[in-house]
Order: sequence, then C-alpha cells, then structure tokens
Amino acid sequence: MRALVYNDNKLELKKNYIKPFPKDNEALIKVKIAGICNTDYEITKGYMGFNGILGHEFVGVVEQINGEDKSLLNKRVVGEINLGCNNCEYCAKGLQRHCPNRQTFGIFNKDGCFADYVTLPLSNLLEVPSCISDETAVFVEPLAAALEIVEQLHIKPFDKICVLGDGKLGLITALALNALSLDVMLVGKHQNKLNIAKNQGVKTKLLDELNQKDSKSYDIVIEATGRISGFETSVNLVKPRGVLVLKSTIATGKELNLAPIVIDEITILGSRCGQFAPALRLMEKNIIDFTKLISARLSFDDAILGFEKNKEKDTIKILLQME
Amino acid sequence: MRALVYNDNKLELKKNYIKPFPKDNEALIKVKIAGICNTDYEITKGYMGFNGILGHEFVGVVEQINGEDKSLLNKRVVGEINLGCNNCEYCAKGLQRHCPNRQTFGIFNKDGCFADYVTLPLSNLLEVPSCISDETAVFVEPLAAALEIVEQLHIKPFDKICVLGDGKLGLITALALNALSLDVMLVGKHQNKLNIAKNQGVKTKLLDELNQKDSKSYDIVIEATGRISGFETSVNLVKPRGVLVLKSTIATGKELNLAPIVIDEITILGSRCGQFAPALRLMEKNIIDFTKLISARLSFDDAILGFEKNKEKDTIKILLQME
Repeated sequence: MRALVYNDNKLELKKNYIKPFPKDNEALIKVKIAGICNTDYEITKGYMGFNGILGHEFVGVVEQINGEDKSLLNKRVVGEINLGCNNCEYCAKGLQRHCPNRQTFGIFNKDGCFADYVTLPLSNLLEVPSCISDETAVFVEPLAAALEIVEQLHIKPFDKICVLGDGKLGLITALALNALSLDVMLVGKHQNKLNIAKNQGVKTKLLDELNQKDSKSYDIVIEATGRISGFETSVNLVKPRGVLVLKSTIATGKELNLAPIVIDEITILGSRCGQFAPALRLMEKNIIDFTKLISARLSFDDAILGFEKNKEKDTIKILLQME
Repeated sequence: MRALVYNDNKLELKKNYIKPFPKDNEALIKVKIAGICNTDYEITKGYMGFNGILGHEFVGVVEQINGEDKSLLNKRVVGEINLGCNNCEYCAKGLQRHCPNRQTFGIFNKDGCFADYVTLPLSNLLEVPSCISDETAVFVEPLAAALEIVEQLHIKPFDKICVLGDGKLGLITALALNALSLDVMLVGKHQNKLNIAKNQGVKTKLLDELNQKDSKSYDIVIEATGRISGFETSVNLVKPRGVLVLKSTIATGKELNLAPIVIDEITILGSRCGQFAPALRLMEKNIIDFTKLISARLSFDDAILGFEKNKEKDTIKILLQME
C-alpha cells in the first residue's frame, strides 16, 4: 500500500509499504480522506521523536474486523487517536488520552492515517452519521480538540471569550464555541481568515484593532497562535481571576514574566485532545461549514506537495484524497 | 513618628515623619508588632515602583476613629491590605484585592505599617480574638495568602499535595493545609527549615530525595520557591490534569517550554492575597505554632538591620517590635 513515512529525518511517500494486520479487537480501515495538521509538520521538525506513518485526521471504511463484534464492518468511521493501556487510573476514568503508557495515532508509537490502510482498536472507532459528509467528518479530531475546552471548563453563557489566532485551531475553536451560542470574539492577523469565521456569525477583530479597552476585559482567552507573543497578549486580555486556555504548545525562547499570573490570579489551563462523540453530535447540527476551511484537496500521490502547501501563510486545511 | 521609608532607591528610618490622620471611616492604629515579608525586600529592588512607608504585616491597637461606628476603638486589630474603590465589579463581589483602582497597604499608593501609626478604612480591620497572641496575629496576612488556595481551589481530602519551597511562604502554606487535615508533603532544600514543619506533623522531603516515583504523582503542587527551577520541578511533579498553584512571582530569565502544560492538560493557578477572617479562625484553633517561624525579634529602631537579616539564608520571619 501507499504510505507517507517519516524516518531518519526524511519524509517519503512509499509505494509498497506493508499493509497492516488488525490485532485482537482491532479493525482494518480503508482510508478515504485524511487532513494535514500542524502537528504533522512539527513531527517532521523532530516533535515527539516519532518515526513511522504520519497523520491522525481521517475518515474511512472498515474492511475487516479481528474480533467478535462485527457491527462496524463496512461502516464509515472516524477514530480517536489515543490508545490507552486500559489498565491504569486514567484509562479507568475514560482518560485514555492521559494514559502514561498510551500510543498516539501518527504521533507516538503507532502508525497514522497517511496510508491506504490503518488499524485501530474497535473501541476507538465511531460510526459517522450519514448526514455528515466525508469532508466534514475529517474535521472531527480538531473539532473534538476545540470542544475539549468545554469538557474542562464550565463556560457560563455570559462569559466574554476571546480566541487569539486565526489559524486552523483558532478558526475551528471560534466556530465551535460560537456554534454552542457562547459569546466569542476571534482575533487574528489575517482578514481573509477572520472572514471565514465572520461569514458564519463569529465576531472578529484584527489584532491591530485591539486597544486599551480590550485589556483585562475577557473572562476567558484561548491562546491558539502557538507564539510566545500570543501568550503575552492573552495574559494582557484576560480579566483578573479569568482563565487563559493554552491550546497550542509553546516554547518561550525568551524571558517570560509570570508575575501577572500571580497578581491577577489568572488560571492557565492546558488543553489538548477531546472526545469524538460530542464533536460528531455538533457536526450533525450542521451549524459549521467546515468546507470553508479547506484550502486544497490533493491526491494522496501529491502528499509531499501538501506538506509544502501547508507551510504557506494563506493555507488553512489541506485534505489528501486516497482515491 | 518613626517610619521606615523607601524613597529615591533608598531605605531610611525617619525619626520625625508626619503622623497620618484618619480620613472618613478610617481608623488610626498604633502598631505593636510588624513582620518583614520578602515583598518588602523586593520593593527595595524596584518591585511595584513603590515609594513610601513599607510594610503590610502588623498587629496594632485602634487609637482614634473618624466615623460613627466606634466599636473597634481601643481594640487590638489586624488589617486587610487591599483598599478597593468600592465602585467596580470586583469590589461588588467582595474582591477588593482585584479592584483595578486599588491601593495596597505598603505596596502600592498607600503607606504601610513600618511606622508607629497607620491609617486604614474601618472595613479593612478585624478584631483579634484574645486567645491569639500578638506574635501569632502578625502572621495573619501570610496565613490568609496560604488559605487563598482553598478559596480558589476545591481540594479533595484524598488529593496528594506537594508544597515546593521551605521559605516563609512554603512553610506557612504547608502548615496551613496540614492544619486543614489535607495530605501535604513539603519539599525543600534546608533540613532545618523542613524540621519546623515536620515537628508540627507535616510530611517533609529534601529536594534531593525526590525521585522518578515522585514524577507526575501529585494532584496539586504549590510552587513557593520563586525560582524558575522550582516552576520546572513543579511541572514535573504534577499529575496529568493536575493543578500547579503559583504562589510566588517569577520571571523566567530563560527559555521555558510550555508544551508539557498543554500535553498533560495541567492547570496553573495564580494565587495571591486571601481573606483574614478564615485565617483568624484557623489561628483560634491553635494548631499551628507560628512562633517557631520567628528568627528574630528586633526593636523597630533596628529595622534596617532587620532587612539585612531577612536576606540571610537561614532567616525565616523577622519581627519588628515598636516598643
């Protein structure tokens, strides 16, 4: 089968990679569409020290099941990306995504979905309702990551929320919270990207338009720029006793003053992967038009080109089509 | 009157400073004992840009009241250090300590207690119950700051807590949480300081004794070292989805990787001043022996010497006695 493999600091599209075989209680899934995430790009810069098949956003069809329960056979599915040991305190709480022994699909110790076929445990799979198109379903993983915020944090209907950053993560987060009828302002540097959210009812503002009145005025600020300057702006925007949600991994690269966090008693909440079921429920409502986030649909044979395009400033989501 | 004044980058004990006059609904208080806090020392290094009389930890006696309610006249009192505008959303919620227009006693725009007399609004004063000695009552401000953690955070009886740092702040925090029957481990570099907590029933460990088993093993870690290395150790000690309480103001001074906070979905909770009433209630229980934290009792005339002694490694709390 074809597979996009990162190995020895090299990204390569292999044509004759060995097709995986499902272990006990796993399914073999034929991938239909996969999405490129910035994490994939970061892995090619050394993040997580991963070697193997990249990719963790996909929709596909179950072709084979190694187990008694065949209910998902031939069904269109998406797959949760964390595989827990199911033998620790985190797995016992349904928090496989914090299992200390977890594998993470396409990110850590487990091949991902930039390939014709993948295997995943049956317990990681969710059937995609027929009303959700492939091109929407492939966004389930980043949407679940956005909704993770409302799993972790009780956001009240009157809370003023600012999402900082108009990349994939910021756009999807703003669209998701807006779809839940929360009071969201998306702030970014690119009017064309902001417009994608604005056209779907989200309030937006250019970063340059922030002024003194915005300082310490948001109950919740969601940092989705991945830059230390974004972190500093977020600290400035959040109210005393407010919450700053860190959605993107940041290394400071310079001196950082943590004193305002203590003085204003700010809560900083790290936030990563979320559950897929609530994301599919939100997709069924058809409130968010995810297709507006698609910058290009490429054949999987052009996957390397897709990675190049992903780096371009105007790119939002690149989809790789397997057929 | 005598007053320890910081002005033009100079700390000076003035002998003939003008005695303050209480404004409407303020009291004039004769100071009995005051405590030196590290914040006082930091102010002499430029923190908050403060000029005026230093000091915010005291116990004293009300000598004069400018207002109708004379109930506190001649009473022994302690005083909350934040003076709100009483005209904003924070003051309306009883959060004068987050009022954007607040003055802070001895720290920002309001003279402090290293003087024979101070003035404070009546609403800031609390009578000290007779069973609490002066030398205990003077610890009410740092104890309230320690108890601020349980105002902000619901700590469950089975939560494993690590307090990192065996200075004043770490010791008082560990003693306070232990007094609430919570499961506390105090970690520090100085066996002699750890022993003060150990002798009062707190579990302690030297920093060098931390090992791999401690990694990601605490539900709540309280950073009280004020050092970036302490912050990094705290991130290492806290469980995924755990809480890291930042009690001390830190500037990183070097590159800091925030990625583990996102990956492990850690909550970082800035925590500052607390309310005095719960602190006085805890003092009435007589569980904590605060006198063991006193390194020296100096005459106020030796206040400058007290600041010098405060810098010494083995010093915990220096008290200044006015008479």
